[in-house]
Amino acid sequence: MDLLGSFAPLASETIPLAAARERILAETLVSQESLPPFSRSTMDGYAVRAADTFGCSESENALLTIVGEIAMGVPGRDLTLKAGQAARIWTGGELPQKADAVVMVEYTQPFGQEAVAVFRPVAPEENVIRAGEDYAAGSVVLEQGSRLRPQDLGVLSGLGITSVPVYRKPKVIILSTGDELVAPDQVPPPGKIRDINSTTLTALVEEAGGIAQPLGICIDDFEHMLALCRENIAQADVLLLSGGSSVGQRDFTRRVLTTIPGAELLVHGISIRPGKPTIFARLGNKALIGLPGHVASAQVVFTCFVRPLLRHYSGLGVNSGLVTVKAIIGQQIASVIGREDYVRVRLIPQKKDALPLAVPVYGKSGLLNPLVKADGLLPIGRDVEGLDKGVTATVLLFP
Amino acid sequence: MDLLGSFAPLASETIPLAAARERILAETLVSQESLPPFSRSTMDGYAVRAADTFGCSESENALLTIVGEIAMGVPGRDLTLKAGQAARIWTGGELPQKADAVVMVEYTQPFGQEAVAVFRPVAPEENVIRAGEDYAAGSVVLEQGSRLRPQDLGVLSGLGITSVPVYRKPKVIILSTGDELVAPDQVPPPGKIRDINSTTLTALVEEAGGIAQPLGICIDDFEHMLALCRENIAQADVLLLSGGSSVGQRDFTRRVLTTIPGAELLVHGISIRPGKPTIFARLGNKALIGLPGHVASAQVVFTCFVRPLLRHYSGLGVNSGLVTVKAIIGQQIASVIGREDYVRVRLIPQKKDALPLAVPVYGKSGLLNPLVKADGLLPIGRDVEGLDKGVTATVLLFP
Repeated sequence: MDLLGSFAPLASETIPLAAARERILAETLVSQESLPPFSRSTMDGYAVRAADTFGCSESENALLTIVGEIAMGVPGRDLTLKAGQAARIWTGGELPQKADAVVMVEYTQPFGQEAVAVFRPVAPEENVIRAGEDYAAGSVVLEQGSRLRPQDLGVLSGLGITSVPVYRKPKVIILSTGDELVAPDQVPPPGKIRDINSTTLTALVEEAGGIAQPLGICIDDFEHMLALCRENIAQADVLLLSGGSSVGQRDFTRRVLTTIPGAELLVHGISIRPGKPTIFARLGNKALIGLPGHVASAQVVFTCFVRPLLRHYSGLGVNSGLVTVKAIIGQQIASVIGREDYVRVRLIPQKKDALPLAVPVYGKSGLLNPLVKADGLLPIGRDVEGLDKGVTATVLLFP
Repeated sequence: MDLLGSFAPLASETIPLAAARERILAETLVSQESLPPFSRSTMDGYAVRAADTFGCSESENALLTIVGEIAMGVPGRDLTLKAGQAARIWTGGELPQKADAVVMVEYTQPFGQEAVAVFRPVAPEENVIRAGEDYAAGSVVLEQGSRLRPQDLGVLSGLGITSVPVYRKPKVIILSTGDELVAPDQVPPPGKIRDINSTTLTALVEEAGGIAQPLGICIDDFEHMLALCRENIAQADVLLLSGGSSVGQRDFTRRVLTTIPGAELLVHGISIRPGKPTIFARLGNKALIGLPGHVASAQVVFTCFVRPLLRHYSGLGVNSGLVTVKAIIGQQIASVIGREDYVRVRLIPQKKDALPLAVPVYGKSGLLNPLVKADGLLPIGRDVEGLDKGVTATVLLFP
């Protein structure tokens, strides 16, 4: 994670509010105006001077003269209430000048054409939102780093802020390598299989908030692969090379990633399982990553390292951002000290308030179906020698 | 929720796999092929007949004749192993005929140019994935109703399934009503304010997996509103009318929703707070919904009713699908029996394994900032008379 923190969040860009859902604010936003822009009624009723209603009751009404009606969307402040006067008002209407409260229509009674009897007093500001009570001009609306949720976008539109500065989304080039691969829409001839990692990694990148640019399949040819990577990383932030699980291919990946001018190898081999043969390099603030060829390993490495990196680039900090659940271990799980294990587990719901059972979905590392059957990953720390049946542990849910 | 269950999931449509992330399968998918299509090595090493290695050890090697190398992507079955023979193979390579296991290169030693010494025996099928071991032809790959995750899309691409039948996404028309509204990019003249609900509801719909079609602002004119709704609902699945929080506007909404030919009023007024003045009607399998005008109320009603409806239309069943967390109530919260309350709460993390504290974010119902400050909603059931400080409760996290 220290390694990931050495990269910097991407530059900001200004985008329309309508496209900003789930984006991360790159600057703190301050209101230039007051919201609401005027004192508004929160009820249907009568705008009054609260003092005129003090002491009134069911038996002793306050009788007020109706001097007007404030239709929706018209300037209520064109009217000024004198003592003993009231104006008909609707929810959201602008209060007349000198009015400081609204009596709900339920607590009034018509009294001829031009007067209203009030039988419950109101306090000043009752049933009213003052101008600027929600957001005063000059106040902070949303802090830098906020993830923009529907309600946040709503407030910004209310303040007339129709474009926002957000961190740029990371662009991720995805390249599957291997002479044995054909595209998913092809029928593989003998000895070949369809490319799976391009599809999986594209979806993982999009799910993590990145822009995926799958380039397809690259044959095991050093010069060709190097040219493809050099050319495309210029326009992107991350290069994800997958495949290359054979020794020869792994060498290609490492050589390609370190031959790109300016590239610097950070890590080759990480002590997690699955995922050991991962290669991590940097080119300035761009990340060059060689993922293991096995789909399950590639997904674990993506979850533990690439996803936090994409979030960090996007302004969300270095974290996976995955939902976690506590679960009871359903059967003993072995692990080796000195290596972090990520066990694919299925969660079996239990009765009512009991924690779910986490059951490992085992299978050879090249198989896909254990990943399809799993609900998430159970991390087993490097200082832990397996988990006993019945203990409580934390599961990272797949998004 | 019974009311929502009376609607039916939408029809299915077939879309390309690349667009299917997060979509819901409308049919169970069965594999037409075997995956992998041939027996593959999961290691770099030598394809062998396992029996030839039985009994070998560090002190007594099994000496095998190398009869070939299986390059990546070539048909390994062109080669047939006789007893005592081995073939060089790489991870992912196709096994030769009669080979049933792979010895890892680490457990071998070259012996001249044409032989290899094996010093650790392998069992049949060791380091091999059999043809069809992941998915046999004719087996179920994913059940109807599955949400398509990255790993699921990967498996489908591996099987050559490049388009999938999924439930159609619900199209939701969004209309903000009120003479007091102006568009967010306008400077409101006195007495008017900017439309907030169009922005919030659009984002909520998209977040819930629907297709939002905001139509903008509609003035309080019955014929105009009716014509707009009739015309647009023909192409959509849901009509969300918001605003209309004044008595006159509420009448408009109800009259419009019940005057559309074929429309049937289901509910007017629900016993939740905030959100009481909600109107629910249907037009065949389409839903016509009048939301409260207050933004906070509209968001609560959306979360409790519209979101589950959109998920139901999409094939996910009638549920909010929100992440929940257990939390400790930070201060006493009052509630009224017979009404379900949804209290906006902020979560304050506590030390290590302790549950977070849930603290209500109070504010007048017309204010936006409590919603911006809140992390989620705390439901208080209709049979409960408030919650005491210190009790444990469940909070629905905003997505």
